[in-house]
This record gives sequence, C-alpha cells and structure tokens, in this order.
Amino acid sequence: MPANATTAEIVAAMRSAQRIAVVAHVRPDGDAVGSVLGLVLSLRALGKDVIAILEDGVPGHLAFLPGTDTVVQPGTEPLGLDLAIALDTSTHERVGAKTKALLDAAPLLVNIDHHPTNPGYGQLNLIDADSPATGQIIYNLLSEHGLPIDDAVLQNLFVAISTDTGSFQFSNVNARTHRIVAEMIEAGLDTARLAQLVYQSYPLRRLELMRDMLNHMKFSADGRVLSWQLRRELMEAVGMQAGDTEGLIDILRMVDSVVGCVIFEDMPDGKVRVSARSKDSRLDVSVVCGHFGGGGHRMASGTRMKGPIEEAAQKFLEVLEHEVRRID
Amino acid sequence: MPANATTAEIVAAMRSAQRIAVVAHVRPDGDAVGSVLGLVLSLRALGKDVIAILEDGVPGHLAFLPGTDTVVQPGTEPLGLDLAIALDTSTHERVGAKTKALLDAAPLLVNIDHHPTNPGYGQLNLIDADSPATGQIIYNLLSEHGLPIDDAVLQNLFVAISTDTGSFQFSNVNARTHRIVAEMIEAGLDTARLAQLVYQSYPLRRLELMRDMLNHMKFSADGRVLSWQLRRELMEAVGMQAGDTEGLIDILRMVDSVVGCVIFEDMPDGKVRVSARSKDSRLDVSVVCGHFGGGGHRMASGTRMKGPIEEAAQKFLEVLEHEVRRID
Repeated sequence: MPANATTAEIVAAMRSAQRIAVVAHVRPDGDAVGSVLGLVLSLRALGKDVIAILEDGVPGHLAFLPGTDTVVQPGTEPLGLDLAIALDTSTHERVGAKTKALLDAAPLLVNIDHHPTNPGYGQLNLIDADSPATGQIIYNLLSEHGLPIDDAVLQNLFVAISTDTGSFQFSNVNARTHRIVAEMIEAGLDTARLAQLVYQSYPLRRLELMRDMLNHMKFSADGRVLSWQLRRELMEAVGMQAGDTEGLIDILRMVDSVVGCVIFEDMPDGKVRVSARSKDSRLDVSVVCGHFGGGGHRMASGTRMKGPIEEAAQKFLEVLEHEVRRID
Repeated sequence: MPANATTAEIVAAMRSAQRIAVVAHVRPDGDAVGSVLGLVLSLRALGKDVIAILEDGVPGHLAFLPGTDTVVQPGTEPLGLDLAIALDTSTHERVGAKTKALLDAAPLLVNIDHHPTNPGYGQLNLIDADSPATGQIIYNLLSEHGLPIDDAVLQNLFVAISTDTGSFQFSNVNARTHRIVAEMIEAGLDTARLAQLVYQSYPLRRLELMRDMLNHMKFSADGRVLSWQLRRELMEAVGMQAGDTEGLIDILRMVDSVVGCVIFEDMPDGKVRVSARSKDSRLDVSVVCGHFGGGGHRMASGTRMKGPIEEAAQKFLEVLEHEVRRID
C-alpha cells in the first residue's frame, strides 16, 4: 500500500481544483452518503463546482439528508473534472463501472477511506483504518484545515459516523469519535432528530421483513448459528426497496447463544447474496465467505453464491457450522 | 422543590459516613443498577461499608455488571446506617416498601436523580434534569471530587448512560455525555464489549416476544397509532423474565407513519400496565396516561388500568386516538 498523503496535500489539491467529483461505493450506506455530502457541501461553500455521484443513487431511507437532491447517478457525458475524490470505497471498482469510467478521465484521484484493505488506488491516498467511519476522517480534515462546516455538513457527517458505528456500539469507536460528536452538539447539531430519522423511521415493509425473519429463522449447530433466507416472493409481497434490510442481521445477533449468523438473499440475477456476522473473535466468518469466493472482515463478511437459495444456504451453513465447532 | 445541595456537601456527607446504603427504584433498569453499583464500588474503594439494595434485585440481563453479586434485596433487620442514598428514583415510595422502611431509619437521606418531577424528598438533594442519566451525575460527582474510579466503576456508569440514552440516540444526550464516554475510553474502558452484552445478548425468549409483537400488533388512527397486548399466556409460554420486554416498544416506534405507540401488559395482580410513547412533540402521552391516573414525560409515560387487557386497551386507545387526531 502506498504511503498516505498528508491532509495538507489533500486539502491543497481540493483548493486548487475548480470542478470536482466526489463519489463513493455502490449500494451506498450511511457512511458513503454522509461522507460524500459532508465533503461536497463544504467544498461548494468554498465556491467549488462539485458533482456528487453515486452509481446507485441515494437509498430512500437516507433521502432526508441535506444535499441528497443534488446527488446524480453517472451518465456517459465527460465531466471535465479537475479532481475526482473517492470516499469509503475499498477498491477502485467498487465505485461502480459507469462512475469509474467518468473518474478515469480526471487528472487526479484522491482516495479517502477507513477500510484497512484499501490498496491505495488514488494518486493521493488517505487511509485511516483507526477511524470507525470515513465520516470521521472527513470531519477531522475539514476542522483541521478550517474548511466550511455548517449544520448541513454536520448532519451528513454525524449520520456517517453514527451508522458505521452501530450508534456508537461497535469496537471501532474511539475517544475521538465521541469528542467529535460532542463538538457537533456544541455547534448546535440536533443529533436526536437525526437518530430518530435514521433508526426510528422505517417503512412498515421493514417490520414485515423483520416479522418474516422471526417467523422463519433457523437455528443450527446447537443454537450457535442462526440464519434466514430472504426470498424473492417475500421481497415482492412487501415491495422491498434498497435499505429495507439494513441492520436486520443485528437482530439475529441479539440471541445470546448465537456466535455466527447469516442472511441469504435472492438477487435479481439468480445468485444469492450472503451476509455473515461473527460474535466471537475466534470465529472468522471471512474464512467461510472466502471458501465461496467472497471475503471481508473477521466479524463481518459476505459473498455471492449460485442459487437456488435453499442449496446455497445448505452449502454455506455446512462450512460455517464446521468453523463454529472448531472453536469449542 | 427544595434547592439542590452542592456536590461538595454531598461528598462530605459520604466521606463522614461509614455505613452507607445505596438504593434505586423498583423494576430497576440499566441506569438504576449502573448508578447504584458505580457509586457503591467507588465508596467501597474509599473504605466505606456499603450495602447495595434493590427491592427487586438485579434483572438477569444486567447480571454481567461488576458488583451485581453484592446487591441484596431488602430484609427486615435494621442496618445501622449512617447514611442512605437514593439514586434515579423520582419519588420516595419508588424505592419499594421494604427498602423505604430500612432507609427511614437512617439519620440522613441523599437523593440524586435526573427526573425533573423529583420533589426533592432527601435532606440533601441533587436533581439535575439536564443529565440524560443518573449515571452521568454520578460520574461528574466522582470525577469532580477525586473519588475512586476504576474499570468496574466505569463499566457500571457507562451502561447507566448508554441504556438511558438509547445508545446515545435520545434528545436528552448533551455534549458532556459524549465527552464523558471519550474520557472513559481514554481510561481504557471497552465500551464495545459492554454494548454487546447490553444490546446483543438477549435470550431467545426476547425474540419470541418480538415475533408475537410483530404478528399481533395493531394499527389504528390511520396508521398513526401502533399497539400490542402482551398477554399472560404468552409470558407463560416463553417463560418471560424481568427485562425481556425492555426496548420492545422502540420497534413499534420505528414505523414511519406512527406518532404514538403503546404496549399493554398483563400484571400478576390482574391489572394492566400501559407504556406509551410519542414520536411527535405535539402529542403528549402523559396527558393520555394522566386521564387513567398515571403520568410521566411528554414523550414517554405509563399508567396502570383495570383488566381485562382487551377492555383496558380499548379504553386507552380511544383517548390516545382522540389526542392524535387533535394534532392534525
């Protein structure tokens, strides 16, 4: 991995550019959307001409964030960029094929991320694996260098940090995380309103999915593995949209006997998306996902498998249960 | 309400006493247990002879907290106290009848709480309605006056603060709350481990209750009210224990159309416990609960009603739906 640039070099690149694109990964989560818009709104306040691009657009449950109405999905017209900035995106490809094509035309690519596996694909890289969220890196960057931070910027960066830390519950949270939120509150940010919009404003569809999960989840390995198959029929019945399933797996994780949990999800292309979580540091779910061509973190990994979902689940659970038995 | 004592006066009372009882309210939650044990462990480290008393004992899901093995339920033997300290208890009676009888024999009662309705029933009172949790008041008290704070104290006070703020999501959270947690992390506290024990270690019974709730919850008032009846038969079927239902109402709150939600719960004495929440500051659920002899806060209130549960629910919902329609 190439050495990190200094934050001063990165800010200098931003200041000397006029036309800038800021992008993040496909299937954007709260950290992707919040980091992009936090930086975009700050750079616009600085007088820059900034395009916010997300290959898959903004998921509905995050549409309340200020600036989401200015996010575009990539077209094919050249953008005449001075600078492209990729946020929260662990590999270059994960910005999406159309977005990548647009970025490739930019003379300079800045890559800011907190994923430890990020290979440093930019000309200027700022990879800080100690930050629980890319939003935390952006906040530090803006505040350290006196870039504009108004309430709209703070809203976006707070949601980035809050969602990527599971509301400050994950092991990636550090003292700086809480000090940043204290500063945000002192600056007048209404964090409770944002928490309500993020965590207490789901469509009924989500409770219908949750209900199906609780009615049809399956234990195995003596109660230590808990899994659920999210089938096409259910998606269609409830009218599922992007974001509806976010965090559902945390409910499976709640059961005290469980050390590993999995959600299998039918994909439009007939494949099956697998999301796996470990609750015990001795169980490495990335090994199990790796067995099927995927990967990720020790405690949170994923992969895609050939359908049908029932067969994929059976194959995956066999390997997972084997790994669970190894930690006895 | 009498004026608050200074924290110096309260600490002086603690230092000059030798035999001290620390208590909190019946049906103790995370703030009650965590505040009591945080203070108890600090005072013990100071060399005091401290009895931790909870009328209903420690609920199972909080038993992991250090010091819970030393919590006693009240007997009838006099305790020979120099000092009694009631924490997080909005009325004197809410410590429980047996506990109150023991406290009444103490020459001095200190009353530390964050409930704005606390009438100041101690000889020395410290009521800070700006603190989101009594645990935050205790942390400030200990750190301001240099009382012992070790990891076991921090574990208890963190859980007190985390649970009473809904993991930092509620509107009572302030900048000081986050600064305290930053200090705790800098002192070496593993907040992620505690969050996992508090939020991701429920017995399967809890998911069974959640499943019943999602299968049987009822919308009314055009989807703006959502309620559930927790019946005796279900409690017996799952073997429900204290703490199993904590936070279940937050799942009802998640639905975006909902402004008010209610859980009705069969009590052993044939009455029905009602817990109501508002999501809209224009809807004051304490008015509705007050109509049935209960009360609480604008956004979170409760009451008890005569059974059977179906009739109680019908009567309560009629008044709640009336209030909901008033905010149109």
